[in-house]
Amino acid sequence: MALIVQKYGGSSVGSLDRIRQVASKIWEARQQGHQLVVVVSAMQGETDRLIQMANKLCPQPAAREYDALISTGEQVSAALLAISLNAKKCNAHSFTGQQIGIITDDFFTCARIQEVRTDLIRQELAQEQVVIVAGFQGIDSKGNITTLGRGGSDTTAVALAAALKADECQIYTDVDGVYTTDPRVLLEARLLDEICFDEMLEMASLGAKVLQMRSVELASQHHIPLRVLSSFHPGAGTLVTSEDKMIQKRSVSGIAISREEAVIAIAGVPNCAGVEGYIIGKISEAHIEIDMIAQHALARELIDFTFTVQRKDYVAAWNIARQLAQELGAASVVNNPKVAKLSIVGIGMRSQSGVAATMFQALGKVGIPIQMITTSEIKISAIIDEEYLERGVEVIHQAFELDKAPQTLAVEASPALSN
Amino acid sequence: MALIVQKYGGSSVGSLDRIRQVASKIWEARQQGHQLVVVVSAMQGETDRLIQMANKLCPQPAAREYDALISTGEQVSAALLAISLNAKKCNAHSFTGQQIGIITDDFFTCARIQEVRTDLIRQELAQEQVVIVAGFQGIDSKGNITTLGRGGSDTTAVALAAALKADECQIYTDVDGVYTTDPRVLLEARLLDEICFDEMLEMASLGAKVLQMRSVELASQHHIPLRVLSSFHPGAGTLVTSEDKMIQKRSVSGIAISREEAVIAIAGVPNCAGVEGYIIGKISEAHIEIDMIAQHALARELIDFTFTVQRKDYVAAWNIARQLAQELGAASVVNNPKVAKLSIVGIGMRSQSGVAATMFQALGKVGIPIQMITTSEIKISAIIDEEYLERGVEVIHQAFELDKAPQTLAVEASPALSN
Repeated sequence: MALIVQKYGGSSVGSLDRIRQVASKIWEARQQGHQLVVVVSAMQGETDRLIQMANKLCPQPAAREYDALISTGEQVSAALLAISLNAKKCNAHSFTGQQIGIITDDFFTCARIQEVRTDLIRQELAQEQVVIVAGFQGIDSKGNITTLGRGGSDTTAVALAAALKADECQIYTDVDGVYTTDPRVLLEARLLDEICFDEMLEMASLGAKVLQMRSVELASQHHIPLRVLSSFHPGAGTLVTSEDKMIQKRSVSGIAISREEAVIAIAGVPNCAGVEGYIIGKISEAHIEIDMIAQHALARELIDFTFTVQRKDYVAAWNIARQLAQELGAASVVNNPKVAKLSIVGIGMRSQSGVAATMFQALGKVGIPIQMITTSEIKISAIIDEEYLERGVEVIHQAFELDKAPQTLAVEASPALSN
Repeated sequence: MALIVQKYGGSSVGSLDRIRQVASKIWEARQQGHQLVVVVSAMQGETDRLIQMANKLCPQPAAREYDALISTGEQVSAALLAISLNAKKCNAHSFTGQQIGIITDDFFTCARIQEVRTDLIRQELAQEQVVIVAGFQGIDSKGNITTLGRGGSDTTAVALAAALKADECQIYTDVDGVYTTDPRVLLEARLLDEICFDEMLEMASLGAKVLQMRSVELASQHHIPLRVLSSFHPGAGTLVTSEDKMIQKRSVSGIAISREEAVIAIAGVPNCAGVEGYIIGKISEAHIEIDMIAQHALARELIDFTFTVQRKDYVAAWNIARQLAQELGAASVVNNPKVAKLSIVGIGMRSQSGVAATMFQALGKVGIPIQMITTSEIKISAIIDEEYLERGVEVIHQAFELDKAPQTLAVEASPALSN
């Protein structure tokens, strides 16, 4: 008998029929003897309906009231799921964040969980109840209702799993799990059996939006095994776990993709201490988020400063860059507003040389020019023309044999994989 | 500066435009310097929408979950109203029943308020906030969400007014106040400036469904002046108050009407002790509610036992009556399935003779036969054929001059009025 926290997203409870299906899934897990705490999102569309009403009354509704309003969506789906379970003679009680005692700070609309009380849940579990918790919400120390921001139900689930020291936290979504790359871009993308927290974080931040980042961080901190799986199809999904628990070995786990990027380079900037901070400062002041930065100035009097921004910010960033170039006496501003970012992610690359070479050679062989490179411990990112995106993913996927299942640890890593 | 509790019903907050109008009304009252606690119902249609979802999942949804579900409707309208007020730069915070501390028993779907905490409200009022409370809901001693049954928001408002010792509790509805009789039946029906609690209770129980009975009882017990007024039209509405606060004098305040009644008489029942209890017991066992009962047996061996039931129960009641007649050796069962009840209500009739005579003479003059009469301290009811209903209301309304404003206490009651 395990203690499992399950989380069902908005599309998983998007209709009464789907709520019934979720109830069946829960009922099966109960039949296997597991103790269950179930976190639900609002029914798909419900939060938007509530937000629309608020916005019709006021374009910028008061944050405290906005949270009180939209938190009802999760309360509704939690109660409906409990009704559906009770109709199956399965004991279940629904609770709001307030009732459970999910205590957050008071940053309305994006609150952070500070404490999760577990006494009521333990009491209910001891009475053989399935405990259904409205996700995405809590109360601050004064008793005001708060919400955790988009994807907050994932965080609720992980925070509950951590507080309860659950055996596993299962995140049910509308995808089958985490893939080696976006299956819409590459048909050969393969479902990963497992991935480690750090890899998942890099994948998520690079645009593979399966899990909310905060929830992955939280699971990682508390060593809660996280499983991403589909509400609609059978299958064990992908287990996100600690590196030391991984039973498979590989250098690269997946390729993250980010479109809608733009690259800008200020070339020939006179090199003086603090110039980079000055440039970044000016762009940040305009509330433009910079993603990648590359600079090389080794023993040179003039430096090239290259960075990427989201494409929506491109024109504003370019204008600032041109002003900066004039001010700083730079030679020119070069740019490409239509680029994409390909990133290979894998904890294995820390200990394995040649990973970068394999990636760049794969792109080079098919004539895809690389416009910018940055690296971190478990990630290598390359900026390429967006038109080469699909082809680039394809050749890198092949180069790392991501379409094939990796070997388990029991077997010595093959020379091909360890490069 | 007064402390006022206002309550807005489902039609008053039935759309975003109406919520804006309510916000304007509240804003005006704030401008006059009043402290305001505002109770809201769910937006019209919202509770039904939630109930329908529950019923589609289960014809008899679990009561605890049902309450958790439908209580969200009031939370939504409370938050939307607060958003609308905040948009007008009027300080306002919304609260659920749980947040305020409205403690009820644990009879889900029809809970009764046991305690209302006022510390948070007082604190908010001191900070110049309009306190908006989701009506119709509370929590039991274990922290489960409960609801108070239909019309429960009225009860919430009165309970809050009582706990806060408010100066007035204003119930905003879709009618202008309490009329001398149903304006749909009689065009000359006049809006009452005031009515006392006992009269209101009689009016309410007799089918003038402006206020929920429980809320009138509560207001009466705690001496909270209750004002019924329209959300949509200007006007001071009707003040429901204690008898000793009434400034107007009259024998009869209004005529309550109840349609859909049926009368059954068991005639010639051998008179023996306990026979009435036996008859009533048999009918109650069939879950049929008896309204009026009349019996006259003074010094007679055979009695006639006459009673009324709702028309929907007529056939079932008649069958029982026939069995009883046979069993008890009664002479016959007489019945009329299409009758209506006219009741005059007025605290003045306690001290004024001739009120009954005026009523019966008025009916007699136009040839309306009376089939049954019962009286209580402040009410006289007559059963007549339903076809005479409108005419009966008209002549009684005229006889008591209900179309004319009553004299105030400062003036001696005229002989015409005191009859």
